Amino acid sequence: MSAEVICVGTELLLGDILNRNTQFLGRELANLGIPHYFQTVVGDNPDRIKQVLAIASDRAQILIVTGGLGPTPDDITTETIASFFETPLEERPELIADIEAKFAQRGKKMSPSNRKQALMPVGAQILHNPMGSASGMIWQPRPNLTIMTFPGVPAEMERMWTETAVPFLQQQGWGDNVILSRTLRFWGIGESNLAEKVSSYLDLSNPTVAPYASKGEVRLRISARAQTQQEAQALINPIEKQIQEIAGFDYFGADEDSLASVTGNLLLEAKQTVAVAESCTGGGLGAMLTSVSGSSGYFLGGIVAYDNELKQQLLGVKAESLNQEGAVSGTVAQQMALGVKKQFQSDWGLSITGIAGPSGGTAEKPVGLVYLGIATRDHQTYQVELRLGEQRLRDTIRHISACHALDQLRRNLLSANVSG
Amino acid sequence: MSAEVICVGTELLLGDILNRNTQFLGRELANLGIPHYFQTVVGDNPDRIKQVLAIASDRAQILIVTGGLGPTPDDITTETIASFFETPLEERPELIADIEAKFAQRGKKMSPSNRKQALMPVGAQILHNPMGSASGMIWQPRPNLTIMTFPGVPAEMERMWTETAVPFLQQQGWGDNVILSRTLRFWGIGESNLAEKVSSYLDLSNPTVAPYASKGEVRLRISARAQTQQEAQALINPIEKQIQEIAGFDYFGADEDSLASVTGNLLLEAKQTVAVAESCTGGGLGAMLTSVSGSSGYFLGGIVAYDNELKQQLLGVKAESLNQEGAVSGTVAQQMALGVKKQFQSDWGLSITGIAGPSGGTAEKPVGLVYLGIATRDHQTYQVELRLGEQRLRDTIRHISACHALDQLRRNLLSANVSG
Repeated sequence: MSAEVICVGTELLLGDILNRNTQFLGRELANLGIPHYFQTVVGDNPDRIKQVLAIASDRAQILIVTGGLGPTPDDITTETIASFFETPLEERPELIADIEAKFAQRGKKMSPSNRKQALMPVGAQILHNPMGSASGMIWQPRPNLTIMTFPGVPAEMERMWTETAVPFLQQQGWGDNVILSRTLRFWGIGESNLAEKVSSYLDLSNPTVAPYASKGEVRLRISARAQTQQEAQALINPIEKQIQEIAGFDYFGADEDSLASVTGNLLLEAKQTVAVAESCTGGGLGAMLTSVSGSSGYFLGGIVAYDNELKQQLLGVKAESLNQEGAVSGTVAQQMALGVKKQFQSDWGLSITGIAGPSGGTAEKPVGLVYLGIATRDHQTYQVELRLGEQRLRDTIRHISACHALDQLRRNLLSANVSG
Repeated sequence: MSAEVICVGTELLLGDILNRNTQFLGRELANLGIPHYFQTVVGDNPDRIKQVLAIASDRAQILIVTGGLGPTPDDITTETIASFFETPLEERPELIADIEAKFAQRGKKMSPSNRKQALMPVGAQILHNPMGSASGMIWQPRPNLTIMTFPGVPAEMERMWTETAVPFLQQQGWGDNVILSRTLRFWGIGESNLAEKVSSYLDLSNPTVAPYASKGEVRLRISARAQTQQEAQALINPIEKQIQEIAGFDYFGADEDSLASVTGNLLLEAKQTVAVAESCTGGGLGAMLTSVSGSSGYFLGGIVAYDNELKQQLLGVKAESLNQEGAVSGTVAQQMALGVKKQFQSDWGLSITGIAGPSGGTAEKPVGLVYLGIATRDHQTYQVELRLGEQRLRDTIRHISACHALDQLRRNLLSANVSG
């Protein structure tokens, strides 16, 4: 038993829109424990849609098809599926009534083009769309094959999936083998380095452990397959614990945790506050900290001082440090951190100054050179030098810098917990 | 002649990450005029990757494969492709040297696991990765079939594509029917509203005009098909001009333009500066302004005042305004804008205060209520009230608010140009 996802839409092939549906469906199928090995995108072309149907119906028992249910001539998913399985279409009066009612709600009349959205293959069950005019179907065109169709609009697809498709799949008793995943997240260690530390786990077969990396962060995904959610969880738990112990402070959280949420929780627990002074990140560190709801409990605010004079006025950076060492220097970073801590009377001060590029680099101070300043609770300061490489994009350099700053604070708070 | 995109990665099937590569590659292939009819996602499984290779190599002449080039055991793309075409792998000394040099740049040693990234099928040309250790290949395993591999990390893939793959494809003379697209971008007008204004253009067949909306922004994509780049451009130009005229100030730019870059250019031209005061966006407005290289030419800095006392101290917001009208009010927004303008001695002051949610809303001041304050060059202030809806996500509310603030400044600068 496996499912396969087919997304229909020339706009996906042309890159006009980002395909978010595969991510949603992938997560959902994994949670239901329904294996899913292939996703295919195909344009609004009947022959090619039929090619994909032939391949997919040969290797999977559930086909999840999104897109092509609209009222315009290029929306051909329903009729193409019916034609492939040599089944006639019929107009469903309940769908006509449903579409008319939805138009009436907005004070409009159903347009003639919408009539085709009421056509379904004979024998198909309607997969009701509570939001729009594009209803889908649940259809068994032959034994051991079920096709479910959804509109391409993510909000509509997701709601139809959750309200109708999931109960249907569970009722069929499909997916009694649960796949449960947990993603462990790490900062301050490279992918190959971490992979070597946990190499013995990478060969496991259940659960499996797989690393991947993105923008300075490394993740390990632990996936377990079992009869029940609890059994799968029981397979994951010991591995998760062992890996956490091996990784130490480089492990920062799991799944939806972020450096901002984890650091925020540590601040909340310690009843401490932070303020930030930013140059090259321009507010990105503050934005990251406040991406977490409830961050007003520990984040007091920040100063973005792009201009050197303002670094002096607002943050108390010394003119001689700026002149002798430059704005991008460890000394200035430390003064910025201490300055903002004083200004906001916060427990911690964090600062970032660097060269995000693509212009502005020199041989001595290349693009990607960033200094972090940390002012601690007891008014000490220290600096961290980052060399993020001249090849990285401006936004990536800014993102990684802000993450490193949060990570420094996180490690300080963890160390205090350990020693306290 | 057609291309096909294959994305390898179990993390894509499980929905752990969003697949952005297909969108980028889809756009690029369209621009090159290389037809592209199918995209497939498959997990890190040799048998299933081979199934996909068999199907794709049967119907396309160019296979673009992303993902699975990392140093860990589940990265098996190169070896699986080689095995499918029954070709041995060989270690490339130049890749070993390249990886070692990249590690050295960051003061690190290459780890043994990275060695496998230097393995390529005999006869394959290296597709150099200027950013990371995962180089790809351009390989003709048999006549009339070219395989190109890329890492899954979008920034690396995109750069390798642009710098190496595109020149290679053009040199081969592939893609002689050019599809050229231009995306016009609008702020301050809804999708259906704009669609009605330009409705006569939506029925054109060459170029085609299609609207999209995302997070408050509306886009119109103009796509033309022609024999040459110039002919396609000539089809697009008049339509673009006409639509711009219809949209007026609601049109802000095209393609890679952003509200931040467009507003920044207007500031540069006018030799004027801006500073920002932020509450609920926490630095996001500053981060948006400074996402543009060269923003130090007009962005002086900002103050993030999450705390009410600090709004008084640093921005001169009046205690009585905070008490009587609350921190989320037009009066406070105006005082913040004027305060930061004074503090930074900038030409313009922009401020944002609001309720980003999901908690913190009341009946009177619901989640999504945001006030913008604008302090103009002549020390006038005004406010804009936004009601962004309680159903939107925290990050979306923050993003839209920052865009609206930039848009206000943009309209002010444009008006001055018109009247000046």
